[in-house]
Amino acid sequence: MKSHRETLTFNVPQRMGFINITPQVAATVAKSGVQDGLVLINAMHITASVFINDDEPGLHEDYKRWLEQLAPYDPSPSRYHHNRTGEDNGDAHHKRQIMGREVVVAITEGKLDFGPWEQIFYGEFDGRRSKRVLVKVIGE
Amino acid sequence: MKSHRETLTFNVPQRMGFINITPQVAATVAKSGVQDGLVLINAMHITASVFINDDEPGLHEDYKRWLEQLAPYDPSPSRYHHNRTGEDNGDAHHKRQIMGREVVVAITEGKLDFGPWEQIFYGEFDGRRSKRVLVKVIGE
Amino acid sequence: MKSHRETLTFNVPQRMGFINITPQVAATVAKSGVQDGLVLINAMHITASVFINDDEPGLHEDYKRWLEQLAPYDPSPSRYHHNRTGEDNGDAHHKRQIMGREVVVAITEGKLDFGPWEQIFYGEFDGRRSKRVLVKVIGE
Repeated sequence: MKSHRETLTFNVPQRMGFINITPQVAATVAKSGVQDGLVLINAMHITASVFINDDEPGLHEDYKRWLEQLAPYDPSPSRYHHNRTGEDNGDAHHKRQIMGREVVVAITEGKLDFGPWEQIFYGEFDGRRSKRVLVKVIGE
Repeated sequence: MKSHRETLTFNVPQRMGFINITPQVAATVAKSGVQDGLVLINAMHITASVFINDDEPGLHEDYKRWLEQLAPYDPSPSRYHHNRTGEDNGDAHHKRQIMGREVVVAITEGKLDFGPWEQIFYGEFDGRRSKRVLVKVIGE
Repeated sequence: MKSHRETLTFNVPQRMGFINITPQVAATVAKSGVQDGLVLINAMHITASVFINDDEPGLHEDYKRWLEQLAPYDPSPSRYHHNRTGEDNGDAHHKRQIMGREVVVAITEGKLDFGPWEQIFYGEFDGRRSKRVLVKVIGE
């Protein structure tokens, strides 16, 4: 069994934003030399997500508006008790649960084994600082 | 390390529906010859889900009603900017995020290592056409 | 390829609650002897979750309040048709979908390969009885 590990670093200038990280993940898989296996891609931070969906700007706007309805940004500790700690990112910990922490993708013939529209995104909900994504490849 | 890959094809005649795919996944695991390992089961389409829950028709009705409240079908581009592309499935991309893209299941002694009520479902949110699920087995 | 399997048992005295299970998972990974690989941690019950977030009591209160808004407890079969079966836990099957069934974590140098704040939780939505979590390690 082979394994390979890399971290990718992102700094989203806004509080919330999505970055297509498929090229970096595909490059990591190629570097690993694994022809058949699995790759785990996860946010290493608990106010961020990795998810798979469409690379369509209108949809990303829709996600932002929808997540803001489901878990609005509110720095006050009355809505989010988490903000009693002095943080203002209670909402981000909720948005991340909707969008998920990680994806696991099959590797077949050395490539990401994807349907026609699948793209991997880093989802940031408390940005304006550097944060990391872990890519771990195992297989043969 | 052994690996095995199959795709399953489903055509749900309604816009939204759930299919129990546990027998097909179990058959794929049996065919792989893997005794100990992991199996990834993921929707290859971004308006569909694979998830694990109960095979109980009342619950499935509840899920449909609940998902419709959280992300109502609305073909107009005013609610979902995604629909400016000419698509009408903005809602489906949201429903899929709630229900998830994939599950990873342990294989032990050649079988799906499940609790008493766990069953695997394909969740369709933009049906009436053929769509695929990927099953990737790795292990020994 | 090595593999190792354990189940952990939890009995949450309330209907809803969260338990930090990171120490037990880390001990299972250590026992496996795997230096490089993946560990799957999943609820074996369909009214419970395993998820990764912050070990902060204020946040856990926030999650409970939020989940109760998204899918309120209601034993009547009019809100949840699932409760026509005689069960009263329709809400719990919905809360579990928001928080997720499972996490997959990388193992590197024999340890859980985590960001600074990542902790693994068992999430219970229909407690007051013993329920199990599966930990499956594969790697080398």
